[in-house]
Order: sequence, then structure tokens, then C-alpha cells
Amino acid sequence: MRVRLDVAYDGAGFAGWARQPSRRTVQETVETALATVLRLPSVAVTCAGRTDAGVHARGQVVHTDVPVAALEQARGRSPQPWPPILLRRLGSVLDRDVRVRGCAVAPDGFDARFAAVWRRYAYRVSDDPAVADPLSRGSVLWWPRRIDVDAMNTAATPLLGAHDFGAFCRPRFGATTVRELLRLHWQRDAAGLAVLDVRADAFCHHMVRALVGALLAVGDGRRSSGWPGEVLRAARRDPTVQVVPAHGLTLESVGYPADHALAARARETRRSRTERA
Amino acid sequence: MRVRLDVAYDGAGFAGWARQPSRRTVQETVETALATVLRLPSVAVTCAGRTDAGVHARGQVVHTDVPVAALEQARGRSPQPWPPILLRRLGSVLDRDVRVRGCAVAPDGFDARFAAVWRRYAYRVSDDPAVADPLSRGSVLWWPRRIDVDAMNTAATPLLGAHDFGAFCRPRFGATTVRELLRLHWQRDAAGLAVLDVRADAFCHHMVRALVGALLAVGDGRRSSGWPGEVLRAARRDPTVQVVPAHGLTLESVGYPADHALAARARETRRSRTERA
Repeated sequence: MRVRLDVAYDGAGFAGWARQPSRRTVQETVETALATVLRLPSVAVTCAGRTDAGVHARGQVVHTDVPVAALEQARGRSPQPWPPILLRRLGSVLDRDVRVRGCAVAPDGFDARFAAVWRRYAYRVSDDPAVADPLSRGSVLWWPRRIDVDAMNTAATPLLGAHDFGAFCRPRFGATTVRELLRLHWQRDAAGLAVLDVRADAFCHHMVRALVGALLAVGDGRRSSGWPGEVLRAARRDPTVQVVPAHGLTLESVGYPADHALAARARETRRSRTERA
Repeated sequence: MRVRLDVAYDGAGFAGWARQPSRRTVQETVETALATVLRLPSVAVTCAGRTDAGVHARGQVVHTDVPVAALEQARGRSPQPWPPILLRRLGSVLDRDVRVRGCAVAPDGFDARFAAVWRRYAYRVSDDPAVADPLSRGSVLWWPRRIDVDAMNTAATPLLGAHDFGAFCRPRFGATTVRELLRLHWQRDAAGLAVLDVRADAFCHHMVRALVGALLAVGDGRRSSGWPGEVLRAARRDPTVQVVPAHGLTLESVGYPADHALAARARETRRSRTERA
């Protein structure tokens, strides 16, 4: 049976999502917790967004295929259905820097990675000592200069839509860097932070952090608002684009089509790209 | 010259506000930073709310009396006035778990402790795995049972006003435990947390955390809504009231009267209580 899990984590204590030998990763942590609770020798999970070291998540989506018997065993003699029981057990096994927030039978055709239609990230910046908050210092970038949110939004406009984002990506051999950027918008939140809301069908490696670096250069006046668009059009990695630190970045949510369209979407994505997401 | 500083800190790394021999405290940290930046052998600060070990602050208010010459020296040849310069220098000297968010000449009669008319704290509780956020685990209590915010607000009503809060305080010899509770109200925030907004002229030791413990017992159904009022009327420390952990508690802001009324307020507070605040 395919199970969908919604996962949140503080990226600070992890070498990213993807398993690596002898490093603490989110994938390995979640897989080990599932194997413990379900009493299986091993469990494999697939995620929607393979976050880099230090990147956080509030809305990571994961699927795993496990035997129904293991779910029934975890339930034991409880009259409750297994999802809330699994949720509670995972909560007691996992360290406090990873939480499973949701647990359900995945609908037919669901695939956390290939059925996703968009990923949404937030990047948070504090540009004023008057709003710097030590309690959120692990997930907010403290920027030494004031930034102009309107100028950054003007600069963001030509980046929207489907483009080759090679200029903002760490290239991977044989992989396309064409992505469709659906939203790239800065806003001040109630606490006075500048928060980027960025959404795309998928992102290539370092893409959000390079986009933020390019926009911050506009925001604090070092570059004109036309510059990020010029970098995009040049279509080659620009060494003057700063890749900002990972700790300001959080995977907030992942979008999926309606249940009846899941399988078709997964097929289509698999055909058009293997190296994306 | 008297200077007002607005200070925020993550309480996790401190043995509370007040100086203690060979412990890291917020007071000692701020005093040392001021002495460094102002090149003075020592600086003494007074705060509005002496937070316990592990308690956080976003709106702590502090005053200090320093020679004008030291402020001018810190300014150097800059054409800027000294407050933004002091703010920036303190920011570079202090660790990231304490921030000075504001810095200004204090108005005549200002006293961070004795001129304050109220202190406002928040206590944050997550009672649902679906909203548990690892990124804020340092400032939110994770409660294992669901809590009923309306029942807690019903229970809070008879506690409002001026009472002897001895039942909810760790007693100090010779000190009154009469306080005026101005607000004690729970609300769900946008993220789904239950947040207590509590305001009083001043609080005695452990008072907020004992009030929260009594209200959570109502919220999760272990006690009736009349119980916290009964505990109050008994006017003696009740061992069945749980003092909840410090890390859910944050000093959010401190209120002062209009400038012309500051000196009178400070005189009045000094007369009516020496051991409060």
C-alpha cells in the first residue's frame, strides 16, 4: 500500500534530504523511523523536493510503499484506524527537528515526486536591526543593508514563465535547466521581514538561492532592476550572482492535481524529464 | 545620560536575565557588550522584566546611565547621531541569540523597571501534530493532548483584576503577591497554535507559567473551568498546579505612560512595592 506523509524539518542538523553515507540526512532519518515503527528491515521513501543541506521544510511531501500487514501490526488491537497511530508513533521515535504532520493512504496514481505540479518555497530576510528576532535566526537571513521590495518585484517580472534557468543553476550533466517559474514575489510580513514567495513546476540545483542573490543585489541598490533579466538571457552561469545561505530557505508546500489526474501527470513528468524536481 | 535599549533574546542559552556568578546571563552579556563598545570599565543596566532561565524576549526594555563623552567617543567622526551607531556596534559585538532592536535617549523620568505600567507575555502551545513546526520548537510547548481555547478563556475570567496571586507564585519573603491581571486570553494564531496573551502591572515569580499550567488542565479536560478560580481564592501555593516549561514563554512588550507622567509613575511604583516587577 502506498502511504503519503507530510513532513516538516529544521534543516540545520541535516546534510540535506538525500541519503549520503555516514551523514545525518532527513531521508535516512524518516526511513529509519518508519522501519522501526513498522518493524520492517528497511523502508524506502521518495520526496517531492530534495532539499540541500541546511534548507528547511514545512510542507515536504513523501510517499512510501509498505505491506498492509506492517500497517495492521503497528495498529495492534487499537480500534483506531492506522494513520493517526502511525503519526503518533513516528512522533515519539523521531527527534524534535523532524515531524510527520500528516499520514494517509495515497490516492491511486499518487507519486510524491512525479505527480507534483508545483513546489513552493519561501526565502526570509531581515534587513533592519529593529525587527531582527533571535528566535527565528535559524530560518531568516540577516542582511546588513535595507532592501527595496518593490524594486525586487520589478526585477522579478521578466523571470516569470518558462525559461532556461541555466544562469541560476549548478549544472548537472545531461539534465535540462528549463523550468516554468509560476510566482516570484516579495512581500513584507507582519513582523517586518521581507519574504519571497517562489513557485515553479520544479527547481534545479541552487536555483532559488541564486535567484534570491540576484534580487537582493537589486534590492539593496548594487544592481539595476534590469540586471536579473539580463543574467537570465545570457543563459550561462554568472559568477557575480551570489548564492545566498541555505538557512533562509524553506520548502513550504507542494501542489498536486486532482486525484483522477495524478497518474497521467506522473507519466507525463517521467517522460519529459528524469533529472528534474 | 540615560539611554533606553529595546532587547530581544533566545532564552535557551541563558541562565535567565539576572547576573549570576559564572553563568551566562542576558544582563551580563548586554552589560559587557555596552562596556566594550563604549570603552568603559563597566556598565550597569536595569530591565523591565527579569525573565527566568529559558524564557525568551522580543520586547525587553532596559535603561543604562552612561557618560555623554562615552557616547560621543563611540560615534567618532561619523556625521550620524550616536543611536544608530551604537545599535550597529552592539549588533556586531553581541552573539546572534541577543539583539538590541532599538536605542534612544530616554525621556526625563524614564526608568525601565519602575516607570513600566504593564508587562505583556505570550505563551505558545502546539496541541496537534499537524501543526508542530520544528523551526519554532524552541519557543513553543508541544502538548500531547488537544486543548479547548474557549474553556480556558472561561476559566481565565475570574482571575482578571487585582488579586493576591500567592496560589500561583513562588513566594519571596517579605514581598507582596498582589498583582493586577489586565488580560489573560487564549487565541488560535494563523499557524494553528494556541497563544496566551497575558498582561499585568507586574508578575511574581513563576506566575505566568503556573497560570498556564492551571489553564491547560482545563483546556485538555482534566479540570473543570471553575478550578483555576478556586485555586486563586485558596490563596496558597497549590502543588497540583503544574508550572509549565520556560521555553514556551516570551516577554513581548512593556508599556509606559506618556513622557510627562513617567517620573510620577516611577515614584508611585517605588513606594507601593520594592520587590515587584
